[in-house]
Amino acid sequence: MMKNEIRNIVLIGSGNLATNVGKALHKCGYHISQVYSYREETAKELADKLDTEYTTNLSDLYSDADLYITALKDSVLPELIPQIVMGREQSLFVHTAGSVPMNVWAGYANRYGVFYPMQTFSKAREVCFDEIPFFIEANNRDDLLRLKSLASVVSHKVYEATSEQRKSLHLAAVFTCNFANHMYALADELLAKYDLPFEVMLPLIDETARKVHELPPAEAQTGPAVRYDENVIGNHLSMLADEPVMQELYEKISKSIHELKLKQND
Amino acid sequence: MMKNEIRNIVLIGSGNLATNVGKALHKCGYHISQVYSYREETAKELADKLDTEYTTNLSDLYSDADLYITALKDSVLPELIPQIVMGREQSLFVHTAGSVPMNVWAGYANRYGVFYPMQTFSKAREVCFDEIPFFIEANNRDDLLRLKSLASVVSHKVYEATSEQRKSLHLAAVFTCNFANHMYALADELLAKYDLPFEVMLPLIDETARKVHELPPAEAQTGPAVRYDENVIGNHLSMLADEPVMQELYEKISKSIHELKLKQND
Repeated sequence: MMKNEIRNIVLIGSGNLATNVGKALHKCGYHISQVYSYREETAKELADKLDTEYTTNLSDLYSDADLYITALKDSVLPELIPQIVMGREQSLFVHTAGSVPMNVWAGYANRYGVFYPMQTFSKAREVCFDEIPFFIEANNRDDLLRLKSLASVVSHKVYEATSEQRKSLHLAAVFTCNFANHMYALADELLAKYDLPFEVMLPLIDETARKVHELPPAEAQTGPAVRYDENVIGNHLSMLADEPVMQELYEKISKSIHELKLKQND
Repeated sequence: MMKNEIRNIVLIGSGNLATNVGKALHKCGYHISQVYSYREETAKELADKLDTEYTTNLSDLYSDADLYITALKDSVLPELIPQIVMGREQSLFVHTAGSVPMNVWAGYANRYGVFYPMQTFSKAREVCFDEIPFFIEANNRDDLLRLKSLASVVSHKVYEATSEQRKSLHLAAVFTCNFANHMYALADELLAKYDLPFEVMLPLIDETARKVHELPPAEAQTGPAVRYDENVIGNHLSMLADEPVMQELYEKISKSIHELKLKQND
């Protein structure tokens, strides 16, 4: 066992990511000694789930934790860092954001890093951590090993990644997850308009996801846009006449699908 | 058992859909007596898989089949219908297209309908038919029952749907499947640029698909666009500076996500 192994964790944040990571670590036997949120209600709610204390005041953060994990809005983190670190300069600090560089901690903390689980988290749904890729970074070798070993307890997909790589992963994840999910959401809107249930789409959604385990996505593509079938596309565009945003997205995404196909045939 | 049950099928087409439907019916014990394609190579390839004959000439179609299934390009079907039906006016004809109305057969055939499996088919991948929703339509009650009973042999999700409903389903399916898959394809392009493997996205893709079995997609949404996090979005847009198509899609889809969120909060 490594010296100074992580045992005692303070969790700063109480959103979707904080909730899911906190629960996963708690389940694996780690002691979350305290939860912080500026909103008492959500702080208490998460503290109850993790069987621990909470505070709504950063100056009341415990000072003896082995690790401080922040899961805050990207825009809020930088301004809170001085308060989070003050008086705890020798502790280990990590953030969990895809797009925030590790050096956001530099000049404040001495030991710091990143603990980024690439997944879509909602409070309403418990996810299985086994398969979630964790991307780890630290400003020193010992803490890198500590963080990798912590991540390995909850997942068997643990990678090192630089801030630059993580930023690229996060951008790709926005397309893969948020934008793909928005296509489901737009379909849901359409179906509701026609009084058809969304659940009829689930086998198609599942197969679309399963398919790219075997085929590269560009090769897996089907439908009217691949061959730019003007008949069908024109028909669909006129069906979207009273949905200008969907209509524009339909047209632009179809063109992009067709262009990618032509590029591949070159 | 119904009188004149379907036993003997001619398959007109040899693309992804024809291949998958043909194989599914063949596996369930139906006799595909002949396959047509205008290209000899693909006609022969599919005929071999289905252990049957093929022709590249519509005037050589057998005349004694119980059912003629067409799986042709939407734009080609109408012009071939007269040739397909001629001399077989009393047979049952169906097409398999989401966007083509049933009455494309009217004036040519006497008994006709639609047999639409809503799924994404590729020759390179065998799909499980059990869960594929089939949408059935026919111009007479007996054939509707025959077609529903045929579909029920390969799938346990068989529905009746009008041409209007099927058109809406097909439009929603383009968003759900083709457009979501294109988001995977764009992510793949990005990751390749950064020398990162696409497979690292698979857990995220799977969870995004699983999540909408439990939560409506708009509620399942996460990421920078929901709260329109200008920091992250601005950063991502500048990372896409040399990919104008992706950059434009990123911006427009993010705005649409945010608008849907605001609409829901109303």
